[in-house]
Amino acid sequence: MPTLIVGANVKGKPNYMTAAWATVACMAPPMVCVALNKTRYTAKGIEENKTFSLNVPSVKQVVETDHCGLISGTLADKSTVFRSTYGKLKTAPLAEECPVNIECRLFKSVDCGSHLLYIGEIVEIHADASCLTDGKPDITKINPIVYAQSAYFGVGKQVEKAFSAGKSYRK
Amino acid sequence: MPTLIVGANVKGKPNYMTAAWATVACMAPPMVCVALNKTRYTAKGIEENKTFSLNVPSVKQVVETDHCGLISGTLADKSTVFRSTYGKLKTAPLAEECPVNIECRLFKSVDCGSHLLYIGEIVEIHADASCLTDGKPDITKINPIVYAQSAYFGVGKQVEKAFSAGKSYRK
Repeated sequence: MPTLIVGANVKGKPNYMTAAWATVACMAPPMVCVALNKTRYTAKGIEENKTFSLNVPSVKQVVETDHCGLISGTLADKSTVFRSTYGKLKTAPLAEECPVNIECRLFKSVDCGSHLLYIGEIVEIHADASCLTDGKPDITKINPIVYAQSAYFGVGKQVEKAFSAGKSYRK
Repeated sequence: MPTLIVGANVKGKPNYMTAAWATVACMAPPMVCVALNKTRYTAKGIEENKTFSLNVPSVKQVVETDHCGLISGTLADKSTVFRSTYGKLKTAPLAEECPVNIECRLFKSVDCGSHLLYIGEIVEIHADASCLTDGKPDITKINPIVYAQSAYFGVGKQVEKAFSAGKSYRK
């Protein structure tokens, strides 16, 4: 699972929490989704503004990333863990140190039980110029964090090209 | 993103497709979600039976995995790409060669535009004994496939423990 930072303004102040239960939900229009426990402080901000951000931290930000997963915004002010900027949406704080930031407008929330699945339409994606190759975000430069079994991992080496390796398949 | 194989019976026959737009949607009850283009053959099977499986292939299965993403079930019979078994749900085919198989009962589908987001309640999880450490699935033994920028990657080395590394954070 990808390790991400969910940004939301709560009572007008940026808050950041760590999440790994997130993925792409749609291609056209482009959407993402993220599952948050209903009790999360961040959930209040998403409900309040109907906006949020997904930020992709690099392995370099692993301490800040884990900090945002360890402590709730109800107990600690996490507004300065990252430098916050705003893009097209004026209420979705973007974590500047993270190489990729995705601005989302809430499309729908689905009540699944303990968690709400927030589905957001992507309004804009920002990427650090230093992470681009031929104008596109490059995972080897972003160096994102894989989350599994209560630990953070790097991304390993490329194994194969997609839409290519399968051509050698013969029944 | 995790590279997964979605299994569904279509007209009574197993079909497998590759997907990377999937994540956990809820903890209690445990749920997952996966986004599928509306035109997918697999989507017909999910609608038909209200069940599906998510199978976690290992790097060893990268050719079969890519094959299932290259060609549609409308054009090719993919029922024998993997050996199929069934668990508690009698209509969600499990790809035996994949070290982890998740049986899901459809909870809800959300129309997002080009894609339907299928949310499924987990009914059972099967894992190969060879992939367990102290009775739990071990990512270093599963050796799953990370998908990004039209390529497959392995998982890299562990960087930090979660709920731990952040304790060294000081403002």
